[in-house]
Amino acid sequence: MEIKAIQDYYPEELSYCYGCGRLNEYGHQIKSYWDGEETIAHFTPKDFHIAIPGYVYGGLIASIIDCHGTGTAALAAYKAENREPDSLPPFRFVTASLQVDYIKPTPLGVELELRGKIIEVKGRKVISEITVSADNMVCARGKVIAVQMPDNFIAQN
Amino acid sequence: MEIKAIQDYYPEELSYCYGCGRLNEYGHQIKSYWDGEETIAHFTPKDFHIAIPGYVYGGLIASIIDCHGTGTAALAAYKAENREPDSLPPFRFVTASLQVDYIKPTPLGVELELRGKIIEVKGRKVISEITVSADNMVCARGKVIAVQMPDNFIAQN
Repeated sequence: MEIKAIQDYYPEELSYCYGCGRLNEYGHQIKSYWDGEETIAHFTPKDFHIAIPGYVYGGLIASIIDCHGTGTAALAAYKAENREPDSLPPFRFVTASLQVDYIKPTPLGVELELRGKIIEVKGRKVISEITVSADNMVCARGKVIAVQMPDNFIAQN
Repeated sequence: MEIKAIQDYYPEELSYCYGCGRLNEYGHQIKSYWDGEETIAHFTPKDFHIAIPGYVYGGLIASIIDCHGTGTAALAAYKAENREPDSLPPFRFVTASLQVDYIKPTPLGVELELRGKIIEVKGRKVISEITVSADNMVCARGKVIAVQMPDNFIAQN
């Protein structure tokens, strides 16, 4: 059985996010999974996601950190409640705050690995730290404060 | 005479940034100008830059803050040296650190206004604060620490 990403469980009407919505055909379709105690996602930037020649555009790095951060938050929230991601009610997080430190230029043309570490799960808030690596080197490091989307944003299924 | 944006002065080989390169046909082509003591840019997200229905994807907001931040840094650096942006050597900044606070959901379908305030110009570093407004409401606030690109990244003209 194929393991599904957390984004594969998002309700359909919340699955159009440009960064991680499985139904946004123009978007990045980031997919986040557990990998032991951490979360993981992979993304290969396109040639046009360039900053300066040879390197990935910082906005894209911020974007994939953001989306892996909200995915990580959802994974952590289900785990904290000891629930499966196909159980109800669904968890869907939005970003309250995003911090990205660009440690070294991120090379274009290789698959990037995002790893998430859960820092805190408290009430409706999840804080995670996300690294972005290329060729096993950490190129950027982010911190995402994600909050559960207000209930009235979620259409009833 | 049409006023040129700072990005219109970037050397050709550094003008392919997905966020603000005038030569990246797939990118956002953000253009940053002085507006009194502040800097300004405008951007209208596409329909597919969606987060949840009706709202702009946070990664895009981070991206345009990032690029207006580096553009603001370049504008500030020329000003600090009392030089015109078509004088040599060219200034081109990259982002060292990006912080974004999402204050309220940013509505999709309207033009966004970015305003930049210079906080510090020191050595090779410029710090700016950027707001993103929709319908005259500030929806997100960012802080960009930009540093001059290392000289060896800049090809000689």
